Order: sequence, then C-alpha cells, then structure tokens
Amino acid sequence: MTITSEVGNVIAEMRRQVCELHTHLTQYELVIWTAGNVSARVPGRELMVIKPSGAEYDSLTPADMVVCDLYGNLVDGNLNPSSDTAAHAYVYRHMPEVGGVVHTHSTYATAWAARGEPIPCVLTMIADEFGGDIPVGPFALIGDDSIGRGIVETLRDSRSPAVLMRNHGPFTIGRTARDAVKAAVMVEDVARTVHISRQLGTAPPLDPADVTALFERYQNVYGQTAPSDIQETQR
Amino acid sequence: MTITSEVGNVIAEMRRQVCELHTHLTQYELVIWTAGNVSARVPGRELMVIKPSGAEYDSLTPADMVVCDLYGNLVDGNLNPSSDTAAHAYVYRHMPEVGGVVHTHSTYATAWAARGEPIPCVLTMIADEFGGDIPVGPFALIGDDSIGRGIVETLRDSRSPAVLMRNHGPFTIGRTARDAVKAAVMVEDVARTVHISRQLGTAPPLDPADVTALFERYQNVYGQTAPSDIQETQR
Amino acid sequence: MTITSEVGNVIAEMRRQVCELHTHLTQYELVIWTAGNVSARVPGRELMVIKPSGAEYDSLTPADMVVCDLYGNLVDGNLNPSSDTAAHAYVYRHMPEVGGVVHTHSTYATAWAARGEPIPCVLTMIADEFGGDIPVGPFALIGDDSIGRGIVETLRDSRSPAVLMRNHGPFTIGRTARDAVKAAVMVEDVARTVHISRQLGTAPPLDPADVTALFERYQNVYGQTAPSDIQETQR
Amino acid sequence: MTITSEVGNVIAEMRRQVCELHTHLTQYELVIWTAGNVSARVPGRELMVIKPSGAEYDSLTPADMVVCDLYGNLVDGNLNPSSDTAAHAYVYRHMPEVGGVVHTHSTYATAWAARGEPIPCVLTMIADEFGGDIPVGPFALIGDDSIGRGIVETLRDSRSPAVLMRNHGPFTIGRTARDAVKAAVMVEDVARTVHISRQLGTAPPLDPADVTALFERYQNVYGQTAPSDIQETQR
Repeated sequence: MTITSEVGNVIAEMRRQVCELHTHLTQYELVIWTAGNVSARVPGRELMVIKPSGAEYDSLTPADMVVCDLYGNLVDGNLNPSSDTAAHAYVYRHMPEVGGVVHTHSTYATAWAARGEPIPCVLTMIADEFGGDIPVGPFALIGDDSIGRGIVETLRDSRSPAVLMRNHGPFTIGRTARDAVKAAVMVEDVARTVHISRQLGTAPPLDPADVTALFERYQNVYGQTAPSDIQETQR
Repeated sequence: MTITSEVGNVIAEMRRQVCELHTHLTQYELVIWTAGNVSARVPGRELMVIKPSGAEYDSLTPADMVVCDLYGNLVDGNLNPSSDTAAHAYVYRHMPEVGGVVHTHSTYATAWAARGEPIPCVLTMIADEFGGDIPVGPFALIGDDSIGRGIVETLRDSRSPAVLMRNHGPFTIGRTARDAVKAAVMVEDVARTVHISRQLGTAPPLDPADVTALFERYQNVYGQTAPSDIQETQR
Repeated sequence: MTITSEVGNVIAEMRRQVCELHTHLTQYELVIWTAGNVSARVPGRELMVIKPSGAEYDSLTPADMVVCDLYGNLVDGNLNPSSDTAAHAYVYRHMPEVGGVVHTHSTYATAWAARGEPIPCVLTMIADEFGGDIPVGPFALIGDDSIGRGIVETLRDSRSPAVLMRNHGPFTIGRTARDAVKAAVMVEDVARTVHISRQLGTAPPLDPADVTALFERYQNVYGQTAPSDIQETQR
Repeated sequence: MTITSEVGNVIAEMRRQVCELHTHLTQYELVIWTAGNVSARVPGRELMVIKPSGAEYDSLTPADMVVCDLYGNLVDGNLNPSSDTAAHAYVYRHMPEVGGVVHTHSTYATAWAARGEPIPCVLTMIADEFGGDIPVGPFALIGDDSIGRGIVETLRDSRSPAVLMRNHGPFTIGRTARDAVKAAVMVEDVARTVHISRQLGTAPPLDPADVTALFERYQNVYGQTAPSDIQETQR
C-alpha cells in the first residue's frame, strides 16, 4: 500500500493527535511505565494509527506513532506497533462506527476485571456515560484475534463504551479516539468510586428508566454542540 | 436584560475569579475530564457566573465563563452554561445568603452519596467546618428543579455547607464562591478520612456540645479577620 | 520583649526555614487548604516561629511567619498565629529537648486517631523511626492547654516522635523542625501501609528486641553524620 | 583498588544513570523522604554504584553516587553508601546475571510483605513481568548478610524479579538497573491492583500454562528489540 501525499497529511495530523491523547493516560494515572495504548482509525481508509510497543510516555513523539492496516500489518513507521495492535485492528474491522480504541491496566477497573465482576450502575455518572452496568469480557490470551473478538462480542449490543477483560484490564471504544480516551478516564473513575462505596455497604442501583433518561440526555444535550458535529471533538 | 458598563466591570472580575477557582477542583483531584462546576452570584444583581458545559479544565479562560439569570437563562457568553445551571440557580433564588455553589463527583464523598449514608461527625475538622454530620439529599433527575430543591431542603436547616446527593455526588454552598470551593475540598477530605477509619472499626462520635464549641470557635476565631470582613475572601 | 539585631538575624533565618518546611506538607499531601502547621523553637530564647492562622500554602512567605513567646503571645509579625499555637507552646515549655513541632490532619494517621487505635510496630521502618507502636493521645478541645498537655503526657516516656490525638490528628516533635516534619511524613506513610496490610489480615508484630536493635541502629548509623552534628539538619 | 581513567569514564556514566533512575522512584511515589535506593553493577568489574545513605531525592547529583566493591566497602565517593549496601553487594556476588538492584518501601508491596503473603498471579500483567506469584522472603535484620541471603535464596529459582521481604518491603533485581527499577514500579502496581480486587472477593488465578505462555511472549516479543540487544535498555 502506498501512502499518497493527501492521506499523508491526514496521517501526520492523526499521529500528532494520537500522540497527544496519550498524555491523558499519564495525567489520570491510568498507566505505568510503557503499558497502555491509544489508536485511531484513519477516516475513510483501511488504516489505523497506534502507539509503538514498549515505548515510554515521557518521550513519545508524533513520529513514533505507527501506521498499520486493519489486520495489524505495519504500513508506515520506524518502530514495532503495540503488542495489542491485533485487538485494536479486530475492533476496527468489525465495528465500523468505532473511530478510536484505548487499552489500559488502570487500577480499579482492572480490579473489577480480575474478579470478573461488572460495575453496577449506581451513579448518575455511570448512567450518563455508560448507559448501564459496565460489562465483563472473556479471558483471552494475547497473540491472535481472541481479545478483539471478546471486546466486540461484549460491546456490540451494549451502550457501554468500556469492557472489563477478565484478569486483564479495560478496553474502551469511541466514535473518535478522544471519546475512547474519555471513556478510559471515566471507567477508572467510576470503578474507583463504586469500589469504595461497596467497601462499606451496597449502593442501590438506579431505576432502568432513570438510567435511560440520563443516558439519552447526556449523549444529546451535554456539552457545546450536537454529537454529530465534528467541532465537538476538538474542544 | 442589558449589562451596563458598571456591572460589566464587576462581571469581568467575577469571570476571572470563578475561572480561577476551578483550578482548586483539579488541584485536589475533585473532578475528571469536564465534570464539576463552580458558580458565583453577582452581588446585588439577579445574575450568576458559571462554567460552560463540557469544557475542559486545562483550557478554561475567564471569557468562557457564562452569565445567566437566576432561572438559568443565558444573559452573556459564547458557550452553553453548565448542565447543572438550573440547580445552582434554584439555590440562589431560595437561599439569599448564598454567594457561591460548587458541584463535583469527588470520589469519597460520592461513595457515601451512592450508599445514601451521612458522614458522621467523628473528627474535630468535621465539627469545625460542617458543625455536625454531613447530610444526604434525595435522588433527583437532572432537567428540572428537582436537584436544586433537594439541595435547599437539605441545607436550609443545617449548619453544613455540603450535601451528598444520593447516587450522584456532593454540592456545596458558601457565603462566597471561594467558601463553597473550600467546603468542596473539605467534604472530600473528611469523606476519605472517615471512610478509611471505618474500614477497620467504628470511630466514636464527638459529643454534641463539643461539636458546637468547635464549630463556633472555628467560624469566629480562625483565620486573620472576622467572617464579615470582605478581605477574608481575598487571602 | 524587644528583639535585638542579633536575635533578629537568627529569627529571619528561622522564618525562612519554617516557611520552607511547610512545602513538605503539601508535597506529601499531608494537608489541605490552610490546615496544618510547623513551628520551630528559637535556640536559646523563650521564643518560637510558627505559621499564621488560616493562611494558604501556595502564598506563604517568610515574612508571614509569626514569632510568639512560649505562652503563645505574639512577639513579632503582622498576622495572627496558628490556632494551634497554644499546643506548640506547651510542648516547648515542657520538653526542652524539642526544637520543632508539626501538626497535620493527614488522612491515614487521622483515621487511626479517629478510632483511638495505636499503629502497631509491624514494619522495620516503624521500628527505625518510632521505636515501637505509635501511641494515641487523649481527646482534647482547642482553646486551652489540653492539647499540649495530651501531647506531652503521651510522648514524654515514649521513643515515638508522633502521637495520634483522638478524633483529631497527628502531632509530631523533633530535635529540629525538620526532624518533626520528617516524622509527620513518616507517620502518614506507615499509617497508610499498616492500614492497607490490616485490611486483608493481621501482620505479625516485630520482636521487641529486634525493634530496639533497629531503632538504635537507625538513630545512630543512618545518614551521613552523627545526630549531634548540626550539619545533619541541613542536608 | 585504583580507578583507572578508562573505568573512570564508565563509572561517571553509571553515576549519571543511577542518579537519574532514582527519579522514577519519586515519580511513581515508591519512596518518601530519603528511603529507598537503586544500585548498578559496573560491567566487568567487582564494583557497584549506589545511592548515599540518608540523601534526599530532590537534591541527588551524579557526584553524590557512591562506588563500592562487592563487599560494600567504599571505593570512591564523598558520602557514606546506603545502609542497604550490604544487601545489594550480596546479590551481586551470588547472582552474576544481575546488573541492578532496587529497594523501596512502596505502600502496597510492603503491605503484602507485612502479612508475609505472596501476591497471587491473577493478572496477565503479573504473568508477563513476574512469571507467577510474587514470592515472600524471610524476616532479616539489617547489619549483616541476612537480607542479601534472603533475597538470593528466594529469587534464585524463581522467574520473579521481585521479592517481598517480610515486615520490611520489596527488593527487585534486573539484567540492568533500569530493569530492576521497572520491576519495582510494576510490583507496586500489581500489589495495589490485586489488593483492591481482593477487598471485594477473590480473583481466580491464571492457568499455569497461560502464565508460561504470557511470560515467554512478553520476555521475547514485547518492545522494540530482542532482550539481548543493548539498545533495548536505552529506550
């Protein structure tokens, strides 16, 4: 595959964006050392931009970001792609509405994942962002399509943009890579809050009708522009 | 409503102050992403200044702050007001002594709110600042006056400047916006300390007479000037 | 009392040191907002230097530091002294070997204090620094000598430089103010570690003979110079 | 022993590297005050470079780093070596494949150590980095070879680069000092995640065959170059 000058400009901009989005993973302490990764689909192309494998966050540059096709093959870049590239690629192949994928081992979300327990929808913020309980995906070994398949099968029929992969950690998706990063930040936050609440008792779940009312309002009213507006993702 | 030049100067200064007060929410990790908001009443006017909806903390500027009337209608500003504006407005309409309102989803305070459990007054610092247990308010959906009414009905007859809204999170009030921010910082701090203490046993509550003695001393003696002195809020 | 030029130079230097030591309280997140305070005895004088009441950490300057006599009366300074000044003064009057006092409401130490439970000596680091269990002091109201007396009565016959005042928080002492700050940092650290360990079981206590061996070694061998060397406090 | 000009250049570079590696200990909050230390073996020499005793992290300079022989005797440097030098030296004498050693009192790892409980392999990240449960070493007093012997006897036949020394804290080893620092960061991270998961239930352990598959893949495939490539350690 050849990268033409036009798509080259788009990819240069996406490398910059994907690189910058990684700063949220360290800002919110979702990752340590070189763990975790963000990717973005190149719009209208069978391509994705993803973090290189084993790279430290402090020294990441846009030029380090790797371009792969949607089977995880290297298309452009000087470094090996993330060891989770196959999982990201599988999601892009099977969920065309997804424009970004994020994976972390963030502490509280991973703690729920280790027990294989969904995060119950006991907070308005969970209803707003996840539209219900945050589901658990299967245990899957790295190295083939198992992780990607587990993500897709869990999230395909869910309102939730986050899945807790058993004994592993959270993966999040979004219409854009920024939305997927936001979901990664929020899944850790609610995983922490509900964990702490549960330590001293059980919080009552929200009524399903209230969950739907909150979800639909948040998805459509919150923020400065309608979700279909491209500007929304740039603020 | 027209904003005259004189009130315009006051509002410009309040936009600066409200914008700056938001930095405490991130400094003390009370908020993530775009969640949370601070507002201030414009003294002597039926107006309030509040954070815009869905805006990121790192890039907030005074000019982004939105001016609304006390029914939440936009009066001046380029962005949509916070989705919690109706709740803030209800508080200003019904509690004339309140000059500032803060809302966060801070972790430990929200954990108590999720269980619907008041924070017991087992620390001198709780007696100082809250004058007793920190109360729980009702569950209320966003979108009408329900949240505001729940805040006012809970706090009207309480010494506490903080209420834990069920399945949602804390709202705090103050004579000034800065006082409300201080209460937001302190409610999370004591929510955390009492939670941790409770994990390994039950702390004995303070004697009500001691609570009153501590509260009255702190409200009147602590700091550099009397509470009625405007300088106090500028230090 | 008149401050001569000579003692004035000493006090200017101590104001600088005491001001700077407060930065450790925020660095290690031992305090929020304006809570907490550090003081130092002026060597060879019946004077102490202490933080002003209700002052924010970010804007503390050496000139803000207040000079009091050892009964808490203001001797020099433009601001009111800390509301805990009487407790610091009582310690200096009754423990001539003490050169510095620190008070915080740090989360984990305060959680043990709320339950009135000593921190058991289950770590070599507790043996090193505290020489045994970290003791609990009585509940005492602010406003007279009660807090100071509780500190002195608890620590007078203890190896520990820290006391957990019931329903209140830790006070620490040291040969120098810097030593007292170190003890404040370490009491929170071990309070946190032992709390977390205890959540999932009970750690076996160290053998008293081992505690003594560790304490004596650490007090005499650790670091770069003997404890009696003034240089030690400047590194 | 004389340090020739050639080995002098190597040691100058190692002083710089060892000094810089200490910044990770503060970045990830693995240490407080002056606790904790990193050392590195000088390749091809019976020498090690280690942090001085009782030195603060903020002011560490390469020139402060101390050169010792593998019995802990001072060879070059102006300060006393770390009080844990004997333990590091013992490891270098008995494990020739080890190029770096790190010791911290990081909170969660030390909490497991206080109870004397291994961290179970319930996360893919533990399988990747530690190849199984993270083992506990014996209680040992400082001052002779007891700590070093406990580390070596525990790790010699383990895949794990980390040992939880009873009532004390973690020690980690690595092919390089950077690898040992990475292990120190990761042992705290997984100690925290598994602790939190365990608070609300028990996570199922991974299948031993899966652990081996994950460990071997991570050790050989992850990152940018093969583990035997010296460049790997510089990224």
